[in-house]
Amino acid sequence: MSKEITSRAADYSQWYNDLVIKGELADYSAVRGCMVIKPYGFALWENMRDALDKMFKDTGHVNAYFPLFVPKSLFEAEEKNAEGFAKECAIVTHYRLKADPNNKGKLMVDPEAKLEEELVIRPTSEAIIWNTYKGWIQSYRDLPLLINQWANVVRWEMRTRLFLRTAEFLWQEGHTAHATKQEAIEETEKMLHVYADFVENWMAVPVIKGVKSPNERFAGAEDTYCIEALMQDGKALQAGTSHFLGQNFAKAFDVKFSDKENKLEYVWATSWGVSTRLIGALVMAHSDDQGLILPPRIAPQQVVIVPIYKGDEQKALIDAKAHEIIKELKALGIRVKYDDNDNNRPGWKFAEYEMKGVPVRLALGARDLEKNVVEIARRDTKEKRVVGLEGIAQYVQSLLAEIQVYMFEKAKTYRDEHITSANSWDEFVKLLDEKGGFVSAHWDGTPETEEAIKDKTKATIRCIPLDNTLEDGKCILTGNPSTQRVLFARAY
Amino acid sequence: MSKEITSRAADYSQWYNDLVIKGELADYSAVRGCMVIKPYGFALWENMRDALDKMFKDTGHVNAYFPLFVPKSLFEAEEKNAEGFAKECAIVTHYRLKADPNNKGKLMVDPEAKLEEELVIRPTSEAIIWNTYKGWIQSYRDLPLLINQWANVVRWEMRTRLFLRTAEFLWQEGHTAHATKQEAIEETEKMLHVYADFVENWMAVPVIKGVKSPNERFAGAEDTYCIEALMQDGKALQAGTSHFLGQNFAKAFDVKFSDKENKLEYVWATSWGVSTRLIGALVMAHSDDQGLILPPRIAPQQVVIVPIYKGDEQKALIDAKAHEIIKELKALGIRVKYDDNDNNRPGWKFAEYEMKGVPVRLALGARDLEKNVVEIARRDTKEKRVVGLEGIAQYVQSLLAEIQVYMFEKAKTYRDEHITSANSWDEFVKLLDEKGGFVSAHWDGTPETEEAIKDKTKATIRCIPLDNTLEDGKCILTGNPSTQRVLFARAY
Repeated sequence: MSKEITSRAADYSQWYNDLVIKGELADYSAVRGCMVIKPYGFALWENMRDALDKMFKDTGHVNAYFPLFVPKSLFEAEEKNAEGFAKECAIVTHYRLKADPNNKGKLMVDPEAKLEEELVIRPTSEAIIWNTYKGWIQSYRDLPLLINQWANVVRWEMRTRLFLRTAEFLWQEGHTAHATKQEAIEETEKMLHVYADFVENWMAVPVIKGVKSPNERFAGAEDTYCIEALMQDGKALQAGTSHFLGQNFAKAFDVKFSDKENKLEYVWATSWGVSTRLIGALVMAHSDDQGLILPPRIAPQQVVIVPIYKGDEQKALIDAKAHEIIKELKALGIRVKYDDNDNNRPGWKFAEYEMKGVPVRLALGARDLEKNVVEIARRDTKEKRVVGLEGIAQYVQSLLAEIQVYMFEKAKTYRDEHITSANSWDEFVKLLDEKGGFVSAHWDGTPETEEAIKDKTKATIRCIPLDNTLEDGKCILTGNPSTQRVLFARAY
Repeated sequence: MSKEITSRAADYSQWYNDLVIKGELADYSAVRGCMVIKPYGFALWENMRDALDKMFKDTGHVNAYFPLFVPKSLFEAEEKNAEGFAKECAIVTHYRLKADPNNKGKLMVDPEAKLEEELVIRPTSEAIIWNTYKGWIQSYRDLPLLINQWANVVRWEMRTRLFLRTAEFLWQEGHTAHATKQEAIEETEKMLHVYADFVENWMAVPVIKGVKSPNERFAGAEDTYCIEALMQDGKALQAGTSHFLGQNFAKAFDVKFSDKENKLEYVWATSWGVSTRLIGALVMAHSDDQGLILPPRIAPQQVVIVPIYKGDEQKALIDAKAHEIIKELKALGIRVKYDDNDNNRPGWKFAEYEMKGVPVRLALGARDLEKNVVEIARRDTKEKRVVGLEGIAQYVQSLLAEIQVYMFEKAKTYRDEHITSANSWDEFVKLLDEKGGFVSAHWDGTPETEEAIKDKTKATIRCIPLDNTLEDGKCILTGNPSTQRVLFARAY
């Protein structure tokens, strides 16, 4: 088996597809725009999901499950939200197939089984959830409601890419209900920080926390907060969003509560989500021309041990030592695989686990055993060292922690080097074309200017950073006065 | 708040609905036949899912994710399977909504966005998965494939009931591929035993393992194995199925592998699933007229502590002791809740946690503290004891284990008392009408007789038990010769 990967320099986009397919994260499916998440990719997602789920629960949230279907009349109730998603909705119109009388053995949609009201497959669940909350919220004592859902959603995208943009994807969506505006805004910000914590400390991908400009806001939100990451080709990727929804959905679905003074008020809302898209970000932030590079905290396998031997006698000795090491590693909670499949040679295995991004590889040979040493290879730096077997499990444990930090620092250095200020239009365009990354520039604050800049350069405002400093200046395009710089980039 | 529950004697079916709604497991939704799984019900499902998932992984399976949609041409490829599900399929025909020109603010399905090929929402995933496996399986080295998926599926049922029969439900579906018939049959049986182990040892519900008659087989299977449970109203409930699919799907999707002799062979298949329906079984097997009774191993909360006090001083003392106890319980891995919400009185809380089926309740009062004791109440037997606070965590731990066993034994005694042999048609009908439960009777082995018995009595063959003994006899209906008894029952 030869698994050639296109290099980043030759074709970044093909490189990405090669990694996803040949790294066995996902596969194309027979359904337009939908992918199959393969076992290795799904194990990665499980680790991400479990870490996030714990963070949600630690911040007081509980999980629930709401229907896949949204009746059209509910879907259209919050008009901005409906308008934002209407163009990409999969619609169920019938509930039965029947034998096709003109085509033996084939089925056709039964025209007599037409639904009275069409069902939209959820592209996001605000509508169905707020319609449900109406029945759950009467008094301030019922608030806050802090609910999250892990689910599949469908957005009928015209151009799809594995993980980054697929018609069906997996995600989580938090939907919270609050008695006050202040509390809802605090929740929106809290969950943004949870996302940033997860993406930085588990995925080792640095992010910028900010607020979206009105053009890039979630349909139906008053404010959209986001975390923005940078990929190795200099393009940005929105890694998660947290929305302050104001009272928009409460008004659309008539959700009121009686406050402590027995006055009826509309409920305040937030929603926040991250999806399997994060896997695309992970791949593009860290990997190289030999394959995936996965951060230890979420890698399905953190360590692989490859035995190197001739004959059964050597094999038996190495097996015994390997199982000792595995036991020690597992006792430390380390995910380890022993690959003693003798259909494949060690060199093939080395390439295979480089492709799959396993953070640490131990090659255990007969001569190593005699010397009581082992060869350790790091996937991220490709550095190899021979180290003593005494205390090897602790050594590996610290190495994994070191790799996690190193990967983050490396990505952060790259990201920080790619935040550049532009003070003229020419400079702005030149930076986008030649350097990439985030360009920090003044903008006059109008949607029209943002749109014009996008038309001319394909760059969008990624965010107004939360920690932005105010600074008088002139808009990069119009020259109109501006009070702060915002971050532009071309983006996924 | 008063939460009246209909008694089992008055209306069993209403009793069940009351428990699900008032026990806050689930709620009706705005979508016909779909339910909302509420946080308490979902926490229960999470515990069930996590336990099963570990059992699947411990038996060598991995998780993956396949598309929600099945193109109609794939859906119809395995004809029996397609025929079995065609009448209950939700069908996506369009991919866009647009503003309705005749109805301001409303949306309509855009007739120009009609799909070339309709998409069936998976009622089960054999078709999409075997179409995918075609690309993954070339050689015997690619086998076995042992893959499971946690997903939502849709079956457009006409009569729905919370958890027991809903249009959308959550489940897991295992889909495995094997080189030999023998290995596939072994896998089918292995997973049946895994299900039985889970349902008996985690849910405390005894099951009978058996094989379905041809009439009750999964559409597209060669053989369907099942576990059958008994509810308190004497009706049976199919709790899980494991199917030996032969080469049916391999032939429908042309999935062949080259064996060790380089000969091309069709692949052998199994599939197996359990769903949120299990929650319905759990409720009906154990609960009483005061509410849910949940087995400790899967209860979202295993212990609740209710403080009983007057004034802040007593409260502070009790709080301190409660937090000590909680710390000790948590150290033993016990899920405990402290309910010191002072909006509700202790009596209200007692009723509330009885309703929710929390296995153990500790009532901690000021006088108890003085005596260094606490009142412990078991939800299942309603027994109360006053016990010393010394070593209370270990005491609770053993009590939880005791309750788990007791609940199973109680259900098993009831079940065993409700397996009755019938030797004449009159006796058979009388048992079904007056006693209920499983009726063990001879059957001539023909689908026609099975159908006739169903028409006359509404009873179906639940299974032919795996450990059945052969015994010559005469069919209960036709008098034709029979070689073994089978288990009949009215069922959910």
